[in-house]
Amino acid sequence: MSEKIKRIAVLTSGGDAPGMNAAIRAVVRSCAYHDVECVGVFRGLQGLIEGDFKELGPRSVKNIINRGGTFLKSARSQEFRTKAGRQEAYDNLKESNIDALVVIGGDGTFTGAKVFNEEYDFPIVGIPGTIDNDINGTDYTIGYDTALNTVVEAIDKIRDTANSHNRLFLVEVMGRDAGDIALNAGIGAGAEEILIPEQDMGKDRLVASLRRSKKSGKSSSIVVVAEGDQIGKNIMELADYIRENLDEYEVKVTVLGHIQRGGTPSCYDRVLGSRLGVGAVDALLKGERDVMIGISHNKLVSVPFTEAIKGENEIDLDLIRVADITSV
Amino acid sequence: MSEKIKRIAVLTSGGDAPGMNAAIRAVVRSCAYHDVECVGVFRGLQGLIEGDFKELGPRSVKNIINRGGTFLKSARSQEFRTKAGRQEAYDNLKESNIDALVVIGGDGTFTGAKVFNEEYDFPIVGIPGTIDNDINGTDYTIGYDTALNTVVEAIDKIRDTANSHNRLFLVEVMGRDAGDIALNAGIGAGAEEILIPEQDMGKDRLVASLRRSKKSGKSSSIVVVAEGDQIGKNIMELADYIRENLDEYEVKVTVLGHIQRGGTPSCYDRVLGSRLGVGAVDALLKGERDVMIGISHNKLVSVPFTEAIKGENEIDLDLIRVADITSV
Amino acid sequence: MSEKIKRIAVLTSGGDAPGMNAAIRAVVRSCAYHDVECVGVFRGLQGLIEGDFKELGPRSVKNIINRGGTFLKSARSQEFRTKAGRQEAYDNLKESNIDALVVIGGDGTFTGAKVFNEEYDFPIVGIPGTIDNDINGTDYTIGYDTALNTVVEAIDKIRDTANSHNRLFLVEVMGRDAGDIALNAGIGAGAEEILIPEQDMGKDRLVASLRRSKKSGKSSSIVVVAEGDQIGKNIMELADYIRENLDEYEVKVTVLGHIQRGGTPSCYDRVLGSRLGVGAVDALLKGERDVMIGISHNKLVSVPFTEAIKGENEIDLDLIRVADITSV
Amino acid sequence: MSEKIKRIAVLTSGGDAPGMNAAIRAVVRSCAYHDVECVGVFRGLQGLIEGDFKELGPRSVKNIINRGGTFLKSARSQEFRTKAGRQEAYDNLKESNIDALVVIGGDGTFTGAKVFNEEYDFPIVGIPGTIDNDINGTDYTIGYDTALNTVVEAIDKIRDTANSHNRLFLVEVMGRDAGDIALNAGIGAGAEEILIPEQDMGKDRLVASLRRSKKSGKSSSIVVVAEGDQIGKNIMELADYIRENLDEYEVKVTVLGHIQRGGTPSCYDRVLGSRLGVGAVDALLKGERDVMIGISHNKLVSVPFTEAIKGENEIDLDLIRVADITSV
Repeated sequence: MSEKIKRIAVLTSGGDAPGMNAAIRAVVRSCAYHDVECVGVFRGLQGLIEGDFKELGPRSVKNIINRGGTFLKSARSQEFRTKAGRQEAYDNLKESNIDALVVIGGDGTFTGAKVFNEEYDFPIVGIPGTIDNDINGTDYTIGYDTALNTVVEAIDKIRDTANSHNRLFLVEVMGRDAGDIALNAGIGAGAEEILIPEQDMGKDRLVASLRRSKKSGKSSSIVVVAEGDQIGKNIMELADYIRENLDEYEVKVTVLGHIQRGGTPSCYDRVLGSRLGVGAVDALLKGERDVMIGISHNKLVSVPFTEAIKGENEIDLDLIRVADITSV
Repeated sequence: MSEKIKRIAVLTSGGDAPGMNAAIRAVVRSCAYHDVECVGVFRGLQGLIEGDFKELGPRSVKNIINRGGTFLKSARSQEFRTKAGRQEAYDNLKESNIDALVVIGGDGTFTGAKVFNEEYDFPIVGIPGTIDNDINGTDYTIGYDTALNTVVEAIDKIRDTANSHNRLFLVEVMGRDAGDIALNAGIGAGAEEILIPEQDMGKDRLVASLRRSKKSGKSSSIVVVAEGDQIGKNIMELADYIRENLDEYEVKVTVLGHIQRGGTPSCYDRVLGSRLGVGAVDALLKGERDVMIGISHNKLVSVPFTEAIKGENEIDLDLIRVADITSV
Repeated sequence: MSEKIKRIAVLTSGGDAPGMNAAIRAVVRSCAYHDVECVGVFRGLQGLIEGDFKELGPRSVKNIINRGGTFLKSARSQEFRTKAGRQEAYDNLKESNIDALVVIGGDGTFTGAKVFNEEYDFPIVGIPGTIDNDINGTDYTIGYDTALNTVVEAIDKIRDTANSHNRLFLVEVMGRDAGDIALNAGIGAGAEEILIPEQDMGKDRLVASLRRSKKSGKSSSIVVVAEGDQIGKNIMELADYIRENLDEYEVKVTVLGHIQRGGTPSCYDRVLGSRLGVGAVDALLKGERDVMIGISHNKLVSVPFTEAIKGENEIDLDLIRVADITSV
Repeated sequence: MSEKIKRIAVLTSGGDAPGMNAAIRAVVRSCAYHDVECVGVFRGLQGLIEGDFKELGPRSVKNIINRGGTFLKSARSQEFRTKAGRQEAYDNLKESNIDALVVIGGDGTFTGAKVFNEEYDFPIVGIPGTIDNDINGTDYTIGYDTALNTVVEAIDKIRDTANSHNRLFLVEVMGRDAGDIALNAGIGAGAEEILIPEQDMGKDRLVASLRRSKKSGKSSSIVVVAEGDQIGKNIMELADYIRENLDEYEVKVTVLGHIQRGGTPSCYDRVLGSRLGVGAVDALLKGERDVMIGISHNKLVSVPFTEAIKGENEIDLDLIRVADITSV
C-alpha cells in the first residue's frame, strides 16, 4: 500500500448515468474504511479548476444509492482542455493536499485524466460511468443496464398503443456511435427491426422486411432506431420514406430523448457502481494509476486509460442474429 | 329492467387509454352476471361497419385488467361519418341480434353514438375513455390518472439529469386543447413553469420568470408545455427563443409523445373502468340510452351525450395558483 | 388575513405516507410566498416537546416532492399525551416565536392537536396524511392513492406466479379497521374474493365461493385480506382452513407489510399534498384554526377536527357489488 | 445439422421466473426460422405425462416477451420421478412425432431431463430458468436479474419508512441455499447487514455491529436475511433476539415472499431468455443433447447436465467485502 495517499478526491464528469451515486458512495466509504480522507469535487473537471471541493464522510453519502444522476453534479469543461485550466486544477489539488483522484465518466473524461497524469504525474484512477457502454476493456459501464430497462419500459408502453391501433412506430433511442442500447433494448422490447450505426440496412430492405412482417400476420410493428443511424438523415425522413413506400401501416415516431439518462438505478448498476468504487480506492492504495477499473467476466480488472479509450465499438453479430430470429 | 335487452355489444373507439380493458372486462362480466349475452366488436366503429364481432364470456377477459391499450383494438372511422357506413353498422347489429351497445371512447365516439341513436333509435350507453380528461359531466376519464403518473415518472427521470447538469428542460406533454395533464403533472413533477392552452403566459414573462428562478438559487428548471400551447408555434421555437434571451441555462427539449398513452393502468383507472363498465350495463338494463356513465364526487352519474360532448374545458384556477406558489 | 401570524411551524406525525413531502414543501413555499417565516419540526409531536426545530426556506425543500416518507421524520409520542409534555411543547413554540402550527398526520395527530388547541388556544390546522384513507370529511388522504398502486403492482407480480402454477394466493394488505385499501386494490388487481373488516363473509361461504370459481374455469385465484379481517384470527389460520376444506388449489400466503407505506408518490398524492399544504397556510392566515383542510369533490374544504376524527368508516356498498360482479 | 429433428417440444418446469416467456418465444420462432415444427407442452414435466400439447407458430407467442410467469404454465411433477411416469411421457412424445425437447427450469428439471435422456436416449437441451441463480456453468439464470430489481425496489420503499421513523427493518428475501439474491440486493439496497446461508455471522456479532452503526450516526437500518439463514431458526426469532439485546431501534419485520418471483422481466432477462432460446434450438439441430445452454462471459456455452446440477454454490468473497465496506 502506498504510504503517501492520505487524501483522495472524487468527481463525476461528462453525461450523468444512473449508478454514479453508488460509485461515489463506495469511494467515500472505502476511504473511511481505509482511514483515508475523502473530498468531493462538484461539477466534474470544471469544479477541479474552480476549486469547488467539499469534505465527505460516510454519512455525507447516505440515501443516495437509489437516486439517478450524480449528487456531485457533472459538467463538460472546455477549460480543462487548455494547459492553463489543467494547471489551475493541479494547483487546487496541491493546495487542498489531495494526493490522488478518482474520476467517474466516459472516454472524454479518461482522455483528460490521461493527459493530466502525463503532465503532472498525478495518481488518477477512472471508473466507467456512461449509459452508452462504449468503453473498451470493461463488459459494462455504470448506467447502461438501467438505460436498457428504461428504454424497454418505454417501448412496452408504446406497444400498447401500437397493438391497439395496428400501427408502425419508429422509436429513436440513444446511440450515435454505438448500437448496443438499440440492439439489446430492441431484442428486449420485441422490436421487428433494429437500425444501428454499425450496420447499414438500407431503406429499401427495411420497407421490404416490414411488408413481409405485415403479410406474415403482424398487426403492428416497432422499429428501434439508434440516433445517428446510417439509413436516414433523421428519423422523420425515415418515417416519410416508409409512409411513401408502405401503405400497410399508419406510421408514428417517438424520440425517447433524455428520459434514457435518468431514473432509479437498477440493482445491477448499484452493485457495479459499489464494486468499482471500492476497487478504485483499492487500486490507488496499491499504487496503481493511469488506469480504469472495469469489470470482465464478473471480476474487477485494471485497464490502462490508453486501452479504455480506444473507442472501436464492435457489435455482437450473435445478437443481430438473435434479433432477426426472434422477430420472425 | 327492460325485457328486450338480451344481447349487448361493446367496443372501444378513438385513442386507446389505460383502463379500457378493465371497462371491457366489467361490461362482459356484468352481462354474464345479468344473464345477458355479450359480443365484442373489434376496431371500434369501423369494426361495427365491417361486422368484426366475437362472442365474449367471463373467461374471455381474464388477465387483461392489468394491461394497457385495448384488447378489442381501436380505430378512427371515416366511414361511420357517412350515412351509408352507419347503415351497414345498423344492419350488422340487427343481423347479429344485438339489442344494445356500450361504446368506450371520447367525444368523437360519443358524437357518432348520438347521431346513430337519433337515426336508428338504437340503445347506446357511453363510457368516457381518454387520457385527456376532456369530457364534460365526469370528474375523471379512464386513462387520465395513469397518464399523469407516466408523465410525472418521465419528468422525475429528466430532473435527475437536469439537476446533475444545471440545465433547463422543456418537456412537451399531451394536451392540444386541454391543459389538465400539463397542469397536474407539472405540479406533481415540481415544474418551475407550466404552459397550457387555456392561458397565454407570453414568452417574455416566461423568460423573466425563469431568470428570477435562477437568481433565487435554483440550479435547474423544468418547464412543462402542453402540446399546442399559445406562446410558441412549437416547443423548438420556444427553446430557441429562451436560448437567445436567457444565458443562465443550457436549454434542452424532450417530447414525451406516445409513451403517455400506454402503460399498466393505475389502481384508480382499473377501479374506475370496472365501476363504469358495471354501471353502463346497469343503465342499459334500466332502460337508459343516449347517455354516458360518468363519475361525480365518487358516485356514478348518467350524463346525456349532448352534455358530455360540450367540450368547453375549464381550467381550475386554484390549481394555477398552487403551481405558482409551490414553484416559489 | 390575521395580522399576528408571522411564523408557522410544520410537522409530520404518526405513520409516514407518500406525498407528505409534497405537503411539507407546499407549506414551506406558501409561507415564503406570503412572507411568513417557516420552521420545520422534526419527529412530529415528540420533536415539538424536544424543541427539534429548523428554519426552512424555499430551497430547503427542493427535490423532495418525488420522495416517499417524510424528510421531517415522524414518531409516535407518548409524552404528548401528558399535560407535562404538551406544556413543554407550548413553551418551545413560544420561545421560538412560533404563531401557528400545521400538523400532517392521521386521527391520532388530530386528536392531540385538538386537545392542545383547547388547552393553549394555539392556532393549528391539520392536513390528512395517512395511507388508510380513514379520516372523515375528506375524500382522500395523502398516501392512499400511492398505497393502492403499490398493492396492485405487488398483486400483479403474485398473479404471474399464481397463473403459472394454478395456485390460490391469500394476500394480506393494510386495513385493520378500514377495508378501503383491500376493496379498491382488490378490484384493481382482479381479486376473486376480498375480505374486509366491515363485512363478515364467513369461512364457509368463502370456501364455497372459491369452489364455484374453480368450477367456472378459473385456474388460479387471489384472495385479498385486510389485516384484522373478522373471519380468521389471522391469515395463516385462514389458509389452513382453506387447505382442509378445498382440495382444488395449492394455497400460498403473502403478507405485503411495510412496502405499502413507502414508495415514490403518485401524481395524485403529490398534487393533493401540494394543494392541502397551500390550503393549510391560507386557512391559518385567514384566521381558521382547529380544522383540517381536506378535499371534497375536488375542492378544498375546512373540516373541524371534531368532525374529522369521528372515525366511523363506511364502506361503499356499490364497490362491493362491483367486486362481486367483476370477479364473476 | 441433424437430419432427423423435424419437430421440437418446449416446456417450463419448476418455479416460474420472469424471462421464461422470452425463452419460449425464442424457441418457437427459432423453430420457425429453421423450418422445424414446434409444440408447446403445458404444465411442465407433468404435462408431458398427460400429453397436454399444443402446436405453436410464430404468432402464438406474440406479446408475451414483456410478461412475467410462463404462458406454458409450470408444475412440479412427482409422477415424473417414477419410471411409469417417464414411460408415459416418452410414449406421448413418440405418438406426437416429437424428435427433441427443450426444457426450461432449474436443477430439479435438469435432473429429470438427464434421467430421461439416459433411459430413452431422447435429445433434450436445457435452459436455466430460476430466480435463484444456483445453476453451475452459467453466469446468470433467467429471472435472477429481475428478482434482484424487485427486491431492491421493495427495500427502497421500506427504507422510506425506516428513515422516517428511525427503525430497524429485517427483510427476508429468497435464498434458502444460495445467498446471491440477498448479497447482491443487499448491496444494491444499501443494507447495513446481510445474512446469507453460506456464512454464519452469529447473533451476537450482528447485534454488536448494529450497535456500532447506530453510534456512528445511522438513524435507521436495514438487515437483509436470506430465507434459511443459519443464525436464527426464523426471522421472527431473530427479531425477538435483537429486541431483547438492542434498545436503540424499534425493530420491524417484512417477508417479501412471492412478489420476488413475478413481475415484468428486465431487459437483461428478456435478452438472456431470447439468446438461450435461440441457442437451445441451434444446439439440438447441431446434434447436441444432454446439455444446458448457459452464458459465460457474455457468450453462449454448452454445459453437460451433470455439470450444471452440481449444486455447490460458491459465494463471491469479493462481494461480501464490498457489502462490508459500503455499509461503513
